[in-house]
Amino acid sequence: MSKDEFEVPKRIESDALGEKEIPENAYYGINTVRAMENFSVSSFKVHPELIKAIAAIKKAAAITNFQLGLLAEEKVNPIVQACDEIMAGKFDEQFQLDALQGGAGTSTNMMVNEVIANRALEIMGHNRGEYHIIHPNDDVNKGQSTNDVYPTALRIAALKLLEPLTQSFANLQSALQEKEAEFAGIIKLGRTQLQDAVPITLGQEFGAYAEAISRDRWRLYKIEERLKQINLGGTAVGTGLNTPLQYIFKVCQNLRQITRLSLAHAENMIDITQNMDIFVEVSGLLKAAAVNLNKIASDLRLLSSGPGGGLGEIKLPKVQAGSSIMPGKVNPVICEMINQISIEVISSDQAITMAARDGQLELNAFGPLIAHKLLNSMEIMKNGVDIFIEKCIKGIEANSERCKKLLDDSLGIITALVPYFGYDKCSQLAYQALNSKKPLKKLIIEKGLLTEAELEEILNIEKMTKPGIVK
Amino acid sequence: MSKDEFEVPKRIESDALGEKEIPENAYYGINTVRAMENFSVSSFKVHPELIKAIAAIKKAAAITNFQLGLLAEEKVNPIVQACDEIMAGKFDEQFQLDALQGGAGTSTNMMVNEVIANRALEIMGHNRGEYHIIHPNDDVNKGQSTNDVYPTALRIAALKLLEPLTQSFANLQSALQEKEAEFAGIIKLGRTQLQDAVPITLGQEFGAYAEAISRDRWRLYKIEERLKQINLGGTAVGTGLNTPLQYIFKVCQNLRQITRLSLAHAENMIDITQNMDIFVEVSGLLKAAAVNLNKIASDLRLLSSGPGGGLGEIKLPKVQAGSSIMPGKVNPVICEMINQISIEVISSDQAITMAARDGQLELNAFGPLIAHKLLNSMEIMKNGVDIFIEKCIKGIEANSERCKKLLDDSLGIITALVPYFGYDKCSQLAYQALNSKKPLKKLIIEKGLLTEAELEEILNIEKMTKPGIVK
Amino acid sequence: MSKDEFEVPKRIESDALGEKEIPENAYYGINTVRAMENFSVSSFKVHPELIKAIAAIKKAAAITNFQLGLLAEEKVNPIVQACDEIMAGKFDEQFQLDALQGGAGTSTNMMVNEVIANRALEIMGHNRGEYHIIHPNDDVNKGQSTNDVYPTALRIAALKLLEPLTQSFANLQSALQEKEAEFAGIIKLGRTQLQDAVPITLGQEFGAYAEAISRDRWRLYKIEERLKQINLGGTAVGTGLNTPLQYIFKVCQNLRQITRLSLAHAENMIDITQNMDIFVEVSGLLKAAAVNLNKIASDLRLLSSGPGGGLGEIKLPKVQAGSSIMPGKVNPVICEMINQISIEVISSDQAITMAARDGQLELNAFGPLIAHKLLNSMEIMKNGVDIFIEKCIKGIEANSERCKKLLDDSLGIITALVPYFGYDKCSQLAYQALNSKKPLKKLIIEKGLLTEAELEEILNIEKMTKPGIVK
Amino acid sequence: MSKDEFEVPKRIESDALGEKEIPENAYYGINTVRAMENFSVSSFKVHPELIKAIAAIKKAAAITNFQLGLLAEEKVNPIVQACDEIMAGKFDEQFQLDALQGGAGTSTNMMVNEVIANRALEIMGHNRGEYHIIHPNDDVNKGQSTNDVYPTALRIAALKLLEPLTQSFANLQSALQEKEAEFAGIIKLGRTQLQDAVPITLGQEFGAYAEAISRDRWRLYKIEERLKQINLGGTAVGTGLNTPLQYIFKVCQNLRQITRLSLAHAENMIDITQNMDIFVEVSGLLKAAAVNLNKIASDLRLLSSGPGGGLGEIKLPKVQAGSSIMPGKVNPVICEMINQISIEVISSDQAITMAARDGQLELNAFGPLIAHKLLNSMEIMKNGVDIFIEKCIKGIEANSERCKKLLDDSLGIITALVPYFGYDKCSQLAYQALNSKKPLKKLIIEKGLLTEAELEEILNIEKMTKPGIVK
Repeated sequence: MSKDEFEVPKRIESDALGEKEIPENAYYGINTVRAMENFSVSSFKVHPELIKAIAAIKKAAAITNFQLGLLAEEKVNPIVQACDEIMAGKFDEQFQLDALQGGAGTSTNMMVNEVIANRALEIMGHNRGEYHIIHPNDDVNKGQSTNDVYPTALRIAALKLLEPLTQSFANLQSALQEKEAEFAGIIKLGRTQLQDAVPITLGQEFGAYAEAISRDRWRLYKIEERLKQINLGGTAVGTGLNTPLQYIFKVCQNLRQITRLSLAHAENMIDITQNMDIFVEVSGLLKAAAVNLNKIASDLRLLSSGPGGGLGEIKLPKVQAGSSIMPGKVNPVICEMINQISIEVISSDQAITMAARDGQLELNAFGPLIAHKLLNSMEIMKNGVDIFIEKCIKGIEANSERCKKLLDDSLGIITALVPYFGYDKCSQLAYQALNSKKPLKKLIIEKGLLTEAELEEILNIEKMTKPGIVK
Repeated sequence: MSKDEFEVPKRIESDALGEKEIPENAYYGINTVRAMENFSVSSFKVHPELIKAIAAIKKAAAITNFQLGLLAEEKVNPIVQACDEIMAGKFDEQFQLDALQGGAGTSTNMMVNEVIANRALEIMGHNRGEYHIIHPNDDVNKGQSTNDVYPTALRIAALKLLEPLTQSFANLQSALQEKEAEFAGIIKLGRTQLQDAVPITLGQEFGAYAEAISRDRWRLYKIEERLKQINLGGTAVGTGLNTPLQYIFKVCQNLRQITRLSLAHAENMIDITQNMDIFVEVSGLLKAAAVNLNKIASDLRLLSSGPGGGLGEIKLPKVQAGSSIMPGKVNPVICEMINQISIEVISSDQAITMAARDGQLELNAFGPLIAHKLLNSMEIMKNGVDIFIEKCIKGIEANSERCKKLLDDSLGIITALVPYFGYDKCSQLAYQALNSKKPLKKLIIEKGLLTEAELEEILNIEKMTKPGIVK
Repeated sequence: MSKDEFEVPKRIESDALGEKEIPENAYYGINTVRAMENFSVSSFKVHPELIKAIAAIKKAAAITNFQLGLLAEEKVNPIVQACDEIMAGKFDEQFQLDALQGGAGTSTNMMVNEVIANRALEIMGHNRGEYHIIHPNDDVNKGQSTNDVYPTALRIAALKLLEPLTQSFANLQSALQEKEAEFAGIIKLGRTQLQDAVPITLGQEFGAYAEAISRDRWRLYKIEERLKQINLGGTAVGTGLNTPLQYIFKVCQNLRQITRLSLAHAENMIDITQNMDIFVEVSGLLKAAAVNLNKIASDLRLLSSGPGGGLGEIKLPKVQAGSSIMPGKVNPVICEMINQISIEVISSDQAITMAARDGQLELNAFGPLIAHKLLNSMEIMKNGVDIFIEKCIKGIEANSERCKKLLDDSLGIITALVPYFGYDKCSQLAYQALNSKKPLKKLIIEKGLLTEAELEEILNIEKMTKPGIVK
Repeated sequence: MSKDEFEVPKRIESDALGEKEIPENAYYGINTVRAMENFSVSSFKVHPELIKAIAAIKKAAAITNFQLGLLAEEKVNPIVQACDEIMAGKFDEQFQLDALQGGAGTSTNMMVNEVIANRALEIMGHNRGEYHIIHPNDDVNKGQSTNDVYPTALRIAALKLLEPLTQSFANLQSALQEKEAEFAGIIKLGRTQLQDAVPITLGQEFGAYAEAISRDRWRLYKIEERLKQINLGGTAVGTGLNTPLQYIFKVCQNLRQITRLSLAHAENMIDITQNMDIFVEVSGLLKAAAVNLNKIASDLRLLSSGPGGGLGEIKLPKVQAGSSIMPGKVNPVICEMINQISIEVISSDQAITMAARDGQLELNAFGPLIAHKLLNSMEIMKNGVDIFIEKCIKGIEANSERCKKLLDDSLGIITALVPYFGYDKCSQLAYQALNSKKPLKKLIIEKGLLTEAELEEILNIEKMTKPGIVK
């Protein structure tokens, strides 16, 4: 785009509240300028995926209005082109509104309306601001309200972020399963409540992680199902005022084509316009995934603790120097990042819940906060998981010697003797072994309870990692 | 039960830590006594449904062990009878352990083991404490570990509470739908962001509530699906040590029969033993329902505000005097209770999330907190919804006069004129009407924009509550 | 109390909503019966300390009204006696209202009014229900409203629970300081991010815990300061309608004497009546204490992990058998209980925050939830800390051998060499030592970087636990 | 700065993990490059105030090391100049690390070390990367560890943001007090539980808001007190390894001068290094303020609801068009922004609490998340409050006619009659008035209970807004 194409004469716009000067290069108009002044509170911007989703809706609406004879042909083409350009990211720098804006998303909707109108005017060879030719509300927003556009856009944006997120979780499961296979033969001490329990394999541990992640994949799949019902066509309160009934069906159909998402219009649009529980549900599913990620990351930090003075059963890949004062220190920084992402997702879930709870009558005014939290949760989980796979999981090495040593140092085998001696007798044996610091096997043989050969048979550690009474 | 049947000689029990005197009438033993001393911190007790679920598991295990030839016939029958008695609520007063107990539920499991063993001994004509005949761990707990019993029991208890909860939500949906029908003809002002918006019917408002609750019913149905996989047979860490492979299948089959729940053993028991994400997911679904309940309750408080100095569009049933100082005041106390239940469920979700996040390696030690929070959330939601229906929803009356008056006093009809005059012109008209305190219709006629007849045609309020450009 | 004293003829009471039968032995009346029917949702009851605090207020009000000539002498004495009896716990079983009740506490206030009125009537030789003689509202509640009684009572109840809580934290600090002294000579590996860091003493670790707890003591002291301003005398909305100005001063004075708490009436009672931020602040301080308790409990679980396959640097006292399947296993159950108490307090803080946030105009309707959460948080923290001291902290033993071994196995001493060789060189040495599994000291001597004597001088571990460049 | 000054030959840096190419214009080095690769997950960057605080610490450390003879004069001056430039914001674009980074803040500390070292080298006329002359760790980080630098920097950054935040709350209190005075004469209906209660003035309502905000000012003052103790000099785990004892005192003194904050070194640095409870406490105080802001914003939305179909007792300033479909609609967008800021601060408090809870042994690894949340909470509150004052509070207008009408339409005066007729009689009167839709006064006169003159005397509404039994 050449410089000339962009440069426009400084312009003044007015609304019922008065006049405002619009910055020279701005495609947006007076509503956006007011919103920028009203909501400059944070360093958080409206998520770009939400802007693109709104543009997709505007395109679908324009085409639908044209099909229904409500929008002239000479208007629809430039509007559609403007929408396409926004979806391609061409005007990203125009959309600088604060994510914490009040107003139920009206300002974001107005901003996209204005940028589309002005870009369409430009395409038509007119000056920006000549809204009598193409009007942000009467043409671009025709048959729409923020109250149906915004919840629909949030669903589309979330669905768009869902695809790569799902792929990342699939990759994580694979990476964990590879480790499950790789570590299948490494027998080690299982720990419950951080206390020595019974034998397990390192592969089984990674298998459990993989299984938990597979549940998260299922959850992400469920999210898709939950988000596909939209209220576009419901307009202001879901009753559909100012939109023909056909519009509701056609716009959804057009939107499906544009977004390639399997969207459907909700049976009860009044409900979907005012109730945000679906985002609470979706966020709750992300939170469950965050809990699993956190458990895995924390376990890896425990298992790799040391290396000398900790468990040291595995080694995480070294990705950076760990300390500005302690040379040679390598810390589990990727895991710690995952822990923090988990906390971020969980606290965002609380924010979404509170915002959803605060809806009143025909609308929930707090869509902007819900959008900010939900879309960022999805984004950071996806990015976090990708890094987790590449810079942590894939490079994990087992320290099988250490695994063996800690198992030998423990009483992790006593449980296998319960079917032979009973719980109470075994408890006594365990305490005696601990207090005398005598190896358990030696104690049993000394006491004449079993011969060494019998013990060898019973205390077959590998068998202990599978169902059955070891015989 | 006669006094004699119960009275037993005071007894001393011992474990590897030493001796303890057991209270005279106690069926529990030394492990329970220790746990009572260790965990007396709160007024919250272990949920009775959890105790019953553990008893069901003990029964299933006893039968299975008998079928596999691991438990003698003379033991299995009294054990089964003791389990049946506990499930029938006969020993409720024996189970007084604190809900916030540490130890991953071991104390609760031990307590049930002890009560069953002692009751079985009694049935057999023996004295309590004669554990060489029936042992709490070696017989009652045979082939089990707290780590597979407890998560399984929590699922069973939750599923048992789920049935009546689901019914209550179904009833709530019906009650709301009845109001939807009853109020179908009452046209009123719709409000977005608490500001006058466009017309809607009171019936449509209740229809939206009913629709939201129908989603919650779907959620409760999903919960059932999520909870049915159990890790019974996985024993200490999910590997199944000390249980024959057949046991895993048979015990699940027996448990299905006893509980009449469609339980299935998990593919990967190691995973289910250590990961609590499923309870996070389930709690998240309850939380979404709590958000809907809260929205409805808060809306009803808004709509019934007044009666003179508020919206006053509906009247809630009077259920009690509202004030100790202000005579005649009737407050929306049932709605407020629902609001508080919503907060309780949401904060419990946070507790469950934190507890689930804190699992380490082969086990999550915080099952007792998760159980306490989850089961109470389900219980208070069920009870709250029942009262909400009976003492609030069913008795709601509309004040149709008031609805009409507030709609007339508003500019709720201006939006229907946008297709005729455009957004900007209508904005000006709205401001002029507000500033001059002149009714909108009068203003339009005065300005010669439309005739009274045309206006009558366009501003048909009933049509405005349905899709379409009013013509 | 003899049976006869209590038995009264079954009675009917009525209010503007109609008639109700009152249970035979009930001291409460129609408002309580209605509230019981309306709010039976949970197993949580109104906290007894709150009931006692309300009784104290009723006593203060009765005396004040008498002093001002507003209440006859023949009424004031029996009312005061009834209040004293309630404060002594004599009628605990009468106060069974659900903690999650709606109605801003009105039902709890009404219940106490009714029990006092009926007990006073009884004392006077009248029948219960003869309210024309002593009326729950006109006499017992004279000059009061739930809206000033309830927030005042919550402050009093919290202050009463604060005293023993503060003592418990003082005891905890002492117990930790004793361990600080006991373990002063035990040098061990310090760990950051669970990775080997630099030497520290076990005593220093307990000293840090003690210091954190000392901050909590300061916090509890601050809570006292924050709670002492009351709105009693503000009546319905804080304006003081229906109370003489003198009453406001006198009732506070009387209440100070009765409760022996340094209460003061708030300057702006309208504010205190509607704003609950002070309870958010107080709960936030408890939450900070819960975070410290959690950190200590989790650290103790880490340090005592093993015994064979974990860190095993300390031993926690054995308080009960740890597993139903694994004999001899002893788990850190007291610490786990503390972890759960921490979660409970944190999630209660969220509930209090949400409830406080939901206040509207002249009142916050959610006082009952705030009271339930705050008083229980204080109670479980106190009980938990007491047990933590007695059954965990006091009995902790150090395993100094293990501490030494893990320090020797680590590279915890490399940092002390940085002033000699620089960060980069030391990093290389550390990696070489790790990769070659060669002790660091040996490597340095082999490379001729320092002599053994120089190393001995520099790597003085005890010096490393104090400020300074080791020379 | 000219282009030439910046352009440097592309360079390679290496650490113990290998080599990395450094971007041409980068002042940072290999550790920052690795961290950028490791932690690119979110759109959130490290807060600029934290960077400046670290630079202040580096300056203080350099001066101190020079004073102690540990850093040569030719090094200290360029280092100090580089720090001054960073504090002046000159290199803001260099500091692009992700806020969710793992590693306890090491990467941020390393990044600042590197930028300072390279800028100092440049000032000295050397090339970037010539670390044998000035080394990021050995010189810039001398006597420091991330573990003392980072918590100290977080305190400094928070204290810096606290000053303007405190000023904003002072301004808010003033603005509210001005409205209190302006609206002192406007008598209106007080509402409890959204139901008509007793008379109050609009001025009293704003006075209560002002009083709540004055508590928040006190809270912000407390925060200052809580943050001033620092652990600088404690190095890796708080023991002070590799720093002379004098350093601890001198560096704090120097830092006080540089920052003009009244900092003091903590008695027990081991404690402060590992425990993050102070940030939980501070965040809890911010949260209490957020609760007050939320209450005020929500109340303003209620009071300004309508304008025709709501309470409409006040008018908020119009700041932007409220709807893309409904012309003339003006929404309470600034209040809604405040509501969202409140939710953001509350959910950040949860994140801080969880992160603080997760500390382990000698360190809490989650400082970056705590910093991100705390500093952003302070920033958005400050910005939000400023806008709230200017664009909402200052321009609020009362609708005194409407206030009067709603009071007249209510039974808000019945309470004043209780001292005359008793609670029960008044309850009946209230119900009769409501049911018959007859004005209360008329009913009383008709019933011959009081004469019109007596009623006029008693029902003096102005007197009802002050303490006393109206006579």
